[in-house]
Amino acid sequence: MDFTIDPQVAALRDRVRGFIDGVVIPNEPNVEPHGYPAPERLRSLRDAAKGAGLFAPHVGMEFGGLGLDVRAQTVVFEEAGRSLFGPLALNCSAPDEGNMHLLEKVANAAQKEQYLRPLAAGEIRSCFAMTEKAPGAGSDPSMLQTRAVRRGNRWVIDGDKWFITGADGAAFTICMARTGEKIDRADGATMFLVDAGAPGLTIDRETPSLDHFAIGGHCEMHFRGVEVGDDAILGEVGKGYVYAQVRLGPARLTHCMRWLGVAVRAQEVAVAYALERTSFGRTLAEHGAVQTMLADNAIDIEAARQLTRYAAWVLDSGGAGRAETSTAKVFVAEATGRVVDRALQICGSSGVAGTRPLERFYREIRAFRIYDGPSEVHRMALAERIVRNARAARA
Amino acid sequence: MDFTIDPQVAALRDRVRGFIDGVVIPNEPNVEPHGYPAPERLRSLRDAAKGAGLFAPHVGMEFGGLGLDVRAQTVVFEEAGRSLFGPLALNCSAPDEGNMHLLEKVANAAQKEQYLRPLAAGEIRSCFAMTEKAPGAGSDPSMLQTRAVRRGNRWVIDGDKWFITGADGAAFTICMARTGEKIDRADGATMFLVDAGAPGLTIDRETPSLDHFAIGGHCEMHFRGVEVGDDAILGEVGKGYVYAQVRLGPARLTHCMRWLGVAVRAQEVAVAYALERTSFGRTLAEHGAVQTMLADNAIDIEAARQLTRYAAWVLDSGGAGRAETSTAKVFVAEATGRVVDRALQICGSSGVAGTRPLERFYREIRAFRIYDGPSEVHRMALAERIVRNARAARA
Amino acid sequence: MDFTIDPQVAALRDRVRGFIDGVVIPNEPNVEPHGYPAPERLRSLRDAAKGAGLFAPHVGMEFGGLGLDVRAQTVVFEEAGRSLFGPLALNCSAPDEGNMHLLEKVANAAQKEQYLRPLAAGEIRSCFAMTEKAPGAGSDPSMLQTRAVRRGNRWVIDGDKWFITGADGAAFTICMARTGEKIDRADGATMFLVDAGAPGLTIDRETPSLDHFAIGGHCEMHFRGVEVGDDAILGEVGKGYVYAQVRLGPARLTHCMRWLGVAVRAQEVAVAYALERTSFGRTLAEHGAVQTMLADNAIDIEAARQLTRYAAWVLDSGGAGRAETSTAKVFVAEATGRVVDRALQICGSSGVAGTRPLERFYREIRAFRIYDGPSEVHRMALAERIVRNARAARA
Amino acid sequence: MDFTIDPQVAALRDRVRGFIDGVVIPNEPNVEPHGYPAPERLRSLRDAAKGAGLFAPHVGMEFGGLGLDVRAQTVVFEEAGRSLFGPLALNCSAPDEGNMHLLEKVANAAQKEQYLRPLAAGEIRSCFAMTEKAPGAGSDPSMLQTRAVRRGNRWVIDGDKWFITGADGAAFTICMARTGEKIDRADGATMFLVDAGAPGLTIDRETPSLDHFAIGGHCEMHFRGVEVGDDAILGEVGKGYVYAQVRLGPARLTHCMRWLGVAVRAQEVAVAYALERTSFGRTLAEHGAVQTMLADNAIDIEAARQLTRYAAWVLDSGGAGRAETSTAKVFVAEATGRVVDRALQICGSSGVAGTRPLERFYREIRAFRIYDGPSEVHRMALAERIVRNARAARA
Repeated sequence: MDFTIDPQVAALRDRVRGFIDGVVIPNEPNVEPHGYPAPERLRSLRDAAKGAGLFAPHVGMEFGGLGLDVRAQTVVFEEAGRSLFGPLALNCSAPDEGNMHLLEKVANAAQKEQYLRPLAAGEIRSCFAMTEKAPGAGSDPSMLQTRAVRRGNRWVIDGDKWFITGADGAAFTICMARTGEKIDRADGATMFLVDAGAPGLTIDRETPSLDHFAIGGHCEMHFRGVEVGDDAILGEVGKGYVYAQVRLGPARLTHCMRWLGVAVRAQEVAVAYALERTSFGRTLAEHGAVQTMLADNAIDIEAARQLTRYAAWVLDSGGAGRAETSTAKVFVAEATGRVVDRALQICGSSGVAGTRPLERFYREIRAFRIYDGPSEVHRMALAERIVRNARAARA
Repeated sequence: MDFTIDPQVAALRDRVRGFIDGVVIPNEPNVEPHGYPAPERLRSLRDAAKGAGLFAPHVGMEFGGLGLDVRAQTVVFEEAGRSLFGPLALNCSAPDEGNMHLLEKVANAAQKEQYLRPLAAGEIRSCFAMTEKAPGAGSDPSMLQTRAVRRGNRWVIDGDKWFITGADGAAFTICMARTGEKIDRADGATMFLVDAGAPGLTIDRETPSLDHFAIGGHCEMHFRGVEVGDDAILGEVGKGYVYAQVRLGPARLTHCMRWLGVAVRAQEVAVAYALERTSFGRTLAEHGAVQTMLADNAIDIEAARQLTRYAAWVLDSGGAGRAETSTAKVFVAEATGRVVDRALQICGSSGVAGTRPLERFYREIRAFRIYDGPSEVHRMALAERIVRNARAARA
Repeated sequence: MDFTIDPQVAALRDRVRGFIDGVVIPNEPNVEPHGYPAPERLRSLRDAAKGAGLFAPHVGMEFGGLGLDVRAQTVVFEEAGRSLFGPLALNCSAPDEGNMHLLEKVANAAQKEQYLRPLAAGEIRSCFAMTEKAPGAGSDPSMLQTRAVRRGNRWVIDGDKWFITGADGAAFTICMARTGEKIDRADGATMFLVDAGAPGLTIDRETPSLDHFAIGGHCEMHFRGVEVGDDAILGEVGKGYVYAQVRLGPARLTHCMRWLGVAVRAQEVAVAYALERTSFGRTLAEHGAVQTMLADNAIDIEAARQLTRYAAWVLDSGGAGRAETSTAKVFVAEATGRVVDRALQICGSSGVAGTRPLERFYREIRAFRIYDGPSEVHRMALAERIVRNARAARA
Repeated sequence: MDFTIDPQVAALRDRVRGFIDGVVIPNEPNVEPHGYPAPERLRSLRDAAKGAGLFAPHVGMEFGGLGLDVRAQTVVFEEAGRSLFGPLALNCSAPDEGNMHLLEKVANAAQKEQYLRPLAAGEIRSCFAMTEKAPGAGSDPSMLQTRAVRRGNRWVIDGDKWFITGADGAAFTICMARTGEKIDRADGATMFLVDAGAPGLTIDRETPSLDHFAIGGHCEMHFRGVEVGDDAILGEVGKGYVYAQVRLGPARLTHCMRWLGVAVRAQEVAVAYALERTSFGRTLAEHGAVQTMLADNAIDIEAARQLTRYAAWVLDSGGAGRAETSTAKVFVAEATGRVVDRALQICGSSGVAGTRPLERFYREIRAFRIYDGPSEVHRMALAERIVRNARAARA
């Protein structure tokens, strides 16, 4: 049991912190209608990150990244997350980051060259199309309605996806479609790589939304007789939900890491405000009610960090980490939400108004309790696992 | 002890409900960048409300209102609050509603004709300028920095106000300024009626903000040598904070009433979704975790309602209701926030996206835990009162 | 809508307060192994209450009580509840109080003379035997296993009851038994009046238990061929669960009232301690974290009180009050538990130790979240009602 | 960063688990008035632990222990904590365990032979006398009133201690007394080793108390002219509060470890009950509200465990760990309290009654939020540290 951060990782962390403080945060606009860096600004931030040797930290070196394992990602992504623009600058933001991971694990060599290489280089964006509106696949994947049917040597995809983050402007989509009659965790669905502009594919951007989350917004995607060949199949036919787990386990954790950075920053903002602002003859930092909130923030942040790192270690050790990533996801989503809420409360009207990052954080972080499995579904899954284990231990 | 709603009030409530469901909600746009009805839409909604005999329910009949007491307001405003456009349509939204109340209680006859009558008729808008940025008056009124100095038979106002809701477009402002050296609850500050366009007065609209709250946004107001005469004094010189209490006590409660309506509507939306959406072979409404949230919403709503009505009765009975309105304000602000949060969680991605009112409610309701006294300040005040009473009981 | 307390009830409340402060609290032992007044002490307290005209406030005057309606009970029971000995002294403690109510509503004239009259006079005690161990009737009444079979002109009762409060020393039991094949809310179970000492009836006292709750403890009762006649039937055959609702609705509320008194007292103890105890150069009452707890206690108490009174008014108005009593029960059980927990925390080691009433309150109040329906079951019932109503409104 | 448990420690953990399940839990009495093993039972449990090579795991091998570092203690004490008798059997229960640690770090060779050796061997018990009643030293050590005055070559101790755990029957006391005029963290107080039976020393056992916590209860100790020589001084004169930190840092953590074991056991009991008990046609484990509680327990337990291990690593790395042990203490005290509360709620009446360990756990665990620093004081200290660090970073 050793919580020491590898010295190389610690050095990288310090450089990321310097980069975020020195380069990224000064580029955070106070006022931006869409909430994301304009293309030129993004390009210049990414060039700076590349120049600093901080780009694509999670991607294998073969594809131009830093090749960090999951534990090292916990350290580096947290730092990057202190600005909402940080993960974009380092090209480790959702959904691209999860898609790179998935492609690295599952795609064949040609697919890697075609999709992973430019994605890792920050030349293109991507999206991941699984969720559907009621009565389709939401929390319950067996309700998947989008269907891919074999016709000759082609597959024809029909269906409607919803809340697909980053779809507007993505160069390609990883689309989950039903290819078998019955769907379960092990069989029945397949992932397809679909290029933007494929005939029959249309995209509607969802506006407004509480969060902006990522360049490209949340979108509806309509597949109407979209045709792809066998070369579009990611991995094997029928194994879509197996790969979804390959993607979702680490993707849950990388969300945790980035949002943890947001929580750390929110606390920094609140501490700075509490030191400045005076009320009833004392600084806010001397009021017991504010002290309680600052301390609770620190406790939530530390617990969130340790749960994330523990789960990362399980993944690095080769475990599937189902319980550990669910535990981290529920706790971190709720804890970081509480931290941002308390930070905003401490800052009062200054927190509500747009001159500080808190109102943006408050809107962005809310959906984390919902996507990649709502807290309620993770709790149900955890409970079922607990009960299953208890039953097994008895037998 | 009798919780019966007066039959006339109950009839009015039913008519307001019909009006909100039949006229206002269909006019809620799904997509609107600024979040408020365009002027023509607002005018048509208000004409409809006047036609239905529902306009300005809290204003005395002399000025064209329905003359409801505070208890009746609890019933009617809750119904109106089920749409964010409802209080606007009925002309009982903040900050105008609180200003009308204040003018009715404190203004002289000429001021009532000049300001109250057109405000009550919905012909003009107004704002209330008390809050200042650090190191000025926030939660602690003794820190007031805006100053009015007597020069000849004129008053010259200098200072900066901040987070002034509705300032952009308001026909007049009620401005709190220091007129004495020492400020306490009873003396030292004065309220002035300042017309829009007064030389030396400029307004900057704050964008973006988490909430939109009211037409006219949250603004900075800069007073630079703004001159007014004695006829601009509201009530008496030095009594500004006494009148602030006249305004704030009921204003806190009317906020509670309107936000309670938002909570009721959020619950309606969540219940409807839970009945439709299926997951893991059951409707959401059949999942225990969702049932728990629906029940907690109902409990929070009922407790919020009863605390609001109880405080309203205290005010109607002539009490100052300091403890009762603080109790209601803290509880209702937190409880309605929880209700909206749970409703959004139940609706999942549909709650986050803009096609349902929940994302808007979520953004709007957050600041209620901050304005009119943050929860922490009300709690401190409540505790000091409890301790003072205990000490007095011993002596 | 009028929250005024009837002047006669207010006068009675003041007299009860004086009695509790002057007579009952001085008789609270600091150290008592079983936690309840010894028989002589109880008798003397009851004689004092009779002398003061405060005895059996909920019972009709025909049977020697004060004949208060439910709203008046909310006022008087809260005062009585400020000492755990208070409701015992006034003969309005559980389970006797609920049994008196049930007998008054359902028993025939002979049964009233035999059971209600001496119970109302405090000459005997009683118990209510519904709950059974798994797999019997707990939260789910349809699982009832105790069975009464007609044999000739007698009924023979067999079964085991559990957690029966006050059974040890009770002069009679109201026993719920299955008399039909299928059990639902309307039919299938019957209540029998069974005298102590009936052949075949044995009682085991459960020790230890977290709470002591009532004289007579929580007991197991074993019915082995216990025979009773038709005169032992309470009301009609098959209507047991209908009567259970007659008993449980108000009984839930009277629990709320008494525990509310405990919460009020806990807050008084905490305030007194916070005024005395100094830490880091200030009294505890001047520490923000303690102020927050005192204010939260006050808010919880006021919300609990208003929800209880509202539900009481619904019952007095002839409503069944299912939703309102469930709402009150859940909220009050949890809120008063929080109040006692915070009071204990404020008092620190003094709260944990036995020299103040808080450790006793802490143990006693915990089970209120479980008996008369655990919070989870009430929430489920509330949610089902909400959904049922929403479905009906659509149709 | 490596969360792997050392294989030797893992093997020891498994043996402790086997010992607790096979030897200790079967010796937990269902009904015991004082809640602790009678002397013979304790002796036989300790002999068994010694036989199994599990005794005094935290003590250096020189004094007969297993010499575990703090990280290894987190693993082993958690297992031991699954029974309240476990730490007693292994001789690693409070307050003896903390005293052994303190003596090992600070005592001179003669003191170690006289006090540490027999304590480590389980031949005697000890106590730690710091806390005083108001207006003495509670959370704020500068309020210390017990005083030791130099008279000739003797020290004369006068003062009253309170809530001294384990004092009744302890062979010796470590008594904190004021030896300087001004007290701060670095100077002014001294620790003395005082033998039981010293002339002038009397002990009153506090009864009843919410918890029983340890053999020997919570006691008042009265020092009236108690004389000791220089050989009774632990470490150096004036350094009492420095040593208190030496004791308290790890002692806070070992409390966390043991209570974590209680939480784990509470969850096991609740899971077993939820699998057995049926309600509304399903096992409790299939009810969403129960699943939520089981999952929240698992999440709380895992977060508590990781925070404890992280702080242990800081201590093992030579850090003072003030922030980390405070963070762990607050979180673990509150989280394990929640776990026990939920477990009790799941078990319903069976949880309240004495036939399962939950009612005992519920009473015992409450004071952990108070002793070794109430949550409020730790939060204040954490906030002050955060603010101090932020101020330093600016300068």
